[in-house]
Amino acid sequence: MNRREILKLSAASALSALSPAIAQAAVVKAAPSLQPVPKFDFFESSLQGPTDGNPYLDVQLSATFTLDHRSVQVDGFYDGNGAYKIRFMPDTEGPWRFTTSSNATALANHTGSFLCTPANSHGPVSVRNIHHFAYADGTPYFPFGTTCYAWAHQGSEMEQQTLTTLASAPFNKIRMCVFPKSYEFNHNEPEFYPFPRTAPASKEHPQGINDTTRFNPAFFAHFENLLTRLRDLNIEADIILFHPYDRWGYATMSTEADDRYLRYVIARFAAFRNVWWSLANEYDFMKAKTTQDFDRLLRIAQQSDPYQHLRSIHHGHVMYNYGSSTVTHASLQVTDFDSALGWSQQWRKPVLYDECQYEGNIPRRWGNLSGPEMTRRFWLGVIAGCYVTHGETYFDPSLSFDENGTQKIWWANGGVLRGSSPARIAFLRKLLEDTTIHGLEGSPAAYYLNATNPATTAQGVDLKASPAAILYYLDEHQPIEYTFPLDNATYTAELIDPWAMTITPIPGQHSGKTTLRLPASPFQALRFKQAPKS
Amino acid sequence: MNRREILKLSAASALSALSPAIAQAAVVKAAPSLQPVPKFDFFESSLQGPTDGNPYLDVQLSATFTLDHRSVQVDGFYDGNGAYKIRFMPDTEGPWRFTTSSNATALANHTGSFLCTPANSHGPVSVRNIHHFAYADGTPYFPFGTTCYAWAHQGSEMEQQTLTTLASAPFNKIRMCVFPKSYEFNHNEPEFYPFPRTAPASKEHPQGINDTTRFNPAFFAHFENLLTRLRDLNIEADIILFHPYDRWGYATMSTEADDRYLRYVIARFAAFRNVWWSLANEYDFMKAKTTQDFDRLLRIAQQSDPYQHLRSIHHGHVMYNYGSSTVTHASLQVTDFDSALGWSQQWRKPVLYDECQYEGNIPRRWGNLSGPEMTRRFWLGVIAGCYVTHGETYFDPSLSFDENGTQKIWWANGGVLRGSSPARIAFLRKLLEDTTIHGLEGSPAAYYLNATNPATTAQGVDLKASPAAILYYLDEHQPIEYTFPLDNATYTAELIDPWAMTITPIPGQHSGKTTLRLPASPFQALRFKQAPKS
Repeated sequence: MNRREILKLSAASALSALSPAIAQAAVVKAAPSLQPVPKFDFFESSLQGPTDGNPYLDVQLSATFTLDHRSVQVDGFYDGNGAYKIRFMPDTEGPWRFTTSSNATALANHTGSFLCTPANSHGPVSVRNIHHFAYADGTPYFPFGTTCYAWAHQGSEMEQQTLTTLASAPFNKIRMCVFPKSYEFNHNEPEFYPFPRTAPASKEHPQGINDTTRFNPAFFAHFENLLTRLRDLNIEADIILFHPYDRWGYATMSTEADDRYLRYVIARFAAFRNVWWSLANEYDFMKAKTTQDFDRLLRIAQQSDPYQHLRSIHHGHVMYNYGSSTVTHASLQVTDFDSALGWSQQWRKPVLYDECQYEGNIPRRWGNLSGPEMTRRFWLGVIAGCYVTHGETYFDPSLSFDENGTQKIWWANGGVLRGSSPARIAFLRKLLEDTTIHGLEGSPAAYYLNATNPATTAQGVDLKASPAAILYYLDEHQPIEYTFPLDNATYTAELIDPWAMTITPIPGQHSGKTTLRLPASPFQALRFKQAPKS
Repeated sequence: MNRREILKLSAASALSALSPAIAQAAVVKAAPSLQPVPKFDFFESSLQGPTDGNPYLDVQLSATFTLDHRSVQVDGFYDGNGAYKIRFMPDTEGPWRFTTSSNATALANHTGSFLCTPANSHGPVSVRNIHHFAYADGTPYFPFGTTCYAWAHQGSEMEQQTLTTLASAPFNKIRMCVFPKSYEFNHNEPEFYPFPRTAPASKEHPQGINDTTRFNPAFFAHFENLLTRLRDLNIEADIILFHPYDRWGYATMSTEADDRYLRYVIARFAAFRNVWWSLANEYDFMKAKTTQDFDRLLRIAQQSDPYQHLRSIHHGHVMYNYGSSTVTHASLQVTDFDSALGWSQQWRKPVLYDECQYEGNIPRRWGNLSGPEMTRRFWLGVIAGCYVTHGETYFDPSLSFDENGTQKIWWANGGVLRGSSPARIAFLRKLLEDTTIHGLEGSPAAYYLNATNPATTAQGVDLKASPAAILYYLDEHQPIEYTFPLDNATYTAELIDPWAMTITPIPGQHSGKTTLRLPASPFQALRFKQAPKS
């Protein structure tokens, strides 16, 4: 037995006795030559390469990562100052090796390796059970998102405030733009620009001039820092890649520049486990692009992303073809919840109400829902087996309204939350997590709105079996009693007040047609849970 | 000068000095041979005729009423016991004459006359300004209806209670069935049957046997008494001629029986100025009839009614073709108010939301809206330039719910009103009457829901001129302020709380883009009225 074998043996003995975290440290100690990378974190390799010409255009770099018989090819990117980087998010434990390819001799045929150690996270989110999501480790993920379009362009103090708010908010997804935004409540210049500015805005060039053949590494490093911070908060970054509210020229770039930007973003960001690709916000309001342009961009994202992160596109007035295989879920801007079930069934994908107007008080139709109405919309979505995204647009009522003013609002800038719906959204999220692991399925046959938590069998989810739980939401209805058409399983019942955030057990066990006396007030809910078999 | 001439002269002198009512009496005195009938009341002539055979089938009777060069032909009807009747509602003052026609010698070629005197009512309602209604004398009529399907079959005590309730309720239209109803909350046998029952319900004949070749005059006399009482309350009777909720065979009669019944009803009821024809409730739920059957029935109603009373048909799931020239207005069962304006524009007719669910607490999806939600739906309809019908389904919460029980609810039986919406409906009706004489036009361009009261010019309504008033309803929105895009006319502004029933003037006069501070609470409204020109 040589020294190496002894080390291996001692490590193996230690593993059987130690907790996983300590065991991981032990493995690292045992094989110091291999950099440890927890599964679903990311590995990065940096190489020095050419600085002449335009490296962004001239140099191609990729790497092939291999574990046993499996190979994954990822694109590298130029990060300025002669530095070329390759990032990789491993999804399997073990010793990965890689080899680079490049048209630049200095970058080609480099090799390396790292050790993928056990995950310290749930991993990336993907679609599960047709209409729902789960993390890679199987943990259910029910999206309860919020919207802060331009929070990444507000400067470090405000960005920190947003992160502090998010740390105690109920949201596990955030819709956010890569590009800065020029719109109501968003008139500031960003700290960073994605491309070098060869001329500032002027009378002759109102948008300034961008050199879209190059990128600004500082812009992306800043954005990646925010992605990391979100990742540490277990928040998915629903990254909006294009949007119409622009004064710098980012909405009207050439096809070549669009495609190059998209590939560069994917090369840089895809190794973050918490990214989703939203190809555009309100794609149909981007008048310089056609629907075919977005078809192409979605295909590029589909082909370029080694991890197949979730992918969608958000519409303004005209729905995208969410039946397309290039989108993994629908990202809707509608307030029509009656159609939710039909859409889910048609597309056979998760349906996210990513914009159904916002809680607030600004003089815009989309920005002044009451807290109760925002809460109601979350319930309508969830009860249809879909998911809903929050946004908040409160203006301080002690001030004069001024869309160009300095007051910050969550939906535009981040900062602080003022509304009454987040507490109720937290309640609903907890309720959902306590009710189902598979996600709720909207019921087409129900007299009232309800959603079913399907039972699990050895074969997986069984929609035909007695559901493990059933959730009813009575919306504006206020019956003094109601006969719930339960099946022959035995259920307990609870009355839920979504606004008061109370769950009141109803005595007894229930089976078959069950008539319950109700408080005859609107906006109540009921939960039936299968009683444990005695 | 003979005595008659002296009488005429003294009457004419008196007329110039006396009030119209007294003048009318004076005319009657002056011409005692002519029966006076106020315009829009009805004249009835009774003749004795054959009693052998089946007079309902065998005898045809009509009369032609003539004033100057104008002739109107009306059908008579057999009222039993050898009595044949002809009814006529005159619409023009003056001495009318009539001559009868019949295939029975005893009934043919009778003549008579009456004097149509000035109206003591506004007359029948018809369509005005495309989307609205007015009485024959030009007074605007804004339908604020309610629903008591079977109130005419509850016995005299309850019927009187219903009339007492209606006398102080805000409703000027009532949806009511000719036939008794067999449905939840309606299991009683009616006091009267429309056709002679030749056999009661039995095992062999579960619906009993009706002789549909004959009518029961007592049934119709009772119904007419109620029409008279409603007329005296200025309430339009929206008479439902067929409906699916039946256990006596009235929903499954032969085509011949259907047509005969319809013609008989029109011959009897059409002279009441306050009748509307609703060919069916939920026509598409009447499985023994096709849509073509209702097309035919509507054509018969159109051809048989000398007064062209308002005519529609109410749907369940499948909308009737409301573009048809046989219907004067749409009678919808929907809760979709977003489509209201589109439907109005498509059909170019008044749109009535005759069923948009009811305020109540019963365990039926359609029967347990809260009072605030019923109120909201009235506002949504009115603000779209349409009209909404009320219904109430409150069950006494101190009792066990029992659909077969003896408890009466307004929507089914009439009786008393318990809800909180009628007071708010009264407020809205008064507000509408104080705001417009032409009816409100929904605005497609508005950012918020709003409706415009068009201005009048010498040529009539001018939709392009500055509106005399504009009504905004903010629904679930709660802006702290809003910029209203007024035109260059000068307006006063009022804040309206539809639930608190308050109208609060906002100081100042407003013109052009007008920004107003608002209370930032949902379900508020605003009214702008053109200031009188100084």
